[in-house]
Amino acid sequence: MKVRGILETSLYVDDLSAAKAFYTDVLGLAFVSRQPGRHVFLRCGRHMLLLFDAHASAQAGNETPPHGAEGAGHVAFSVEESELNDWRRHLKECGVKIERDFAWPQGGRSIYFRDPAGNSLELATPSIWGVVN
Amino acid sequence: MKVRGILETSLYVDDLSAAKAFYTDVLGLAFVSRQPGRHVFLRCGRHMLLLFDAHASAQAGNETPPHGAEGAGHVAFSVEESELNDWRRHLKECGVKIERDFAWPQGGRSIYFRDPAGNSLELATPSIWGVVN
Repeated sequence: MKVRGILETSLYVDDLSAAKAFYTDVLGLAFVSRQPGRHVFLRCGRHMLLLFDAHASAQAGNETPPHGAEGAGHVAFSVEESELNDWRRHLKECGVKIERDFAWPQGGRSIYFRDPAGNSLELATPSIWGVVN
Repeated sequence: MKVRGILETSLYVDDLSAAKAFYTDVLGLAFVSRQPGRHVFLRCGRHMLLLFDAHASAQAGNETPPHGAEGAGHVAFSVEESELNDWRRHLKECGVKIERDFAWPQGGRSIYFRDPAGNSLELATPSIWGVVN
């Protein structure tokens, strides 16, 4: 009996349309479904990224239990180390400000930026955690 | 140039020690590191679950950009369908209240409960998203 991995990761956004555009157009995630005013669900490899309007997801009476947070969340996405410079260029071309570009002492590198809602996003090589993709 | 998956998922907790005990003892995640008062980092399969004190992680001056949210977040963990009844029993034995046990119309099943900080957690079969673990 073992937890195999993380299947769904959630972020809260103030503008679902802007978030959908950002995550699909800029980061290339695959759109799965949406409920206007409540959520946009995206696929990212073997995982789901769930974007919620915190006020709507915190209402009782949904199929799923209520949740919803205010403030900047944080998610890191796995990318290949060889692609990080291209990502950096691509983000800049999309008008996304690079907040930090960090080479970790133990190896690996992370680029930090924000989504339109202010969530802290990171493109990182999985080697920073000794994880093989 | 492609995002391969989600490497780090974050939740915010009010009591890092209680959260560490819950995620390692009840859910069986592997402890990786901690910074007292700021974070506990856990490994879950190929992913990292990062538990933060929102006040501490929102401070400027850390290695990584500030973030931190208040309110209940949501994470779903992948489990085997054949193990879900054992998980249900295990959670009850650990004193964790099952908030919902839901069989999805399209197949698959989810069990919902809370961590000590009130975050909404889900044990789900990856088939609910057509994902193969």
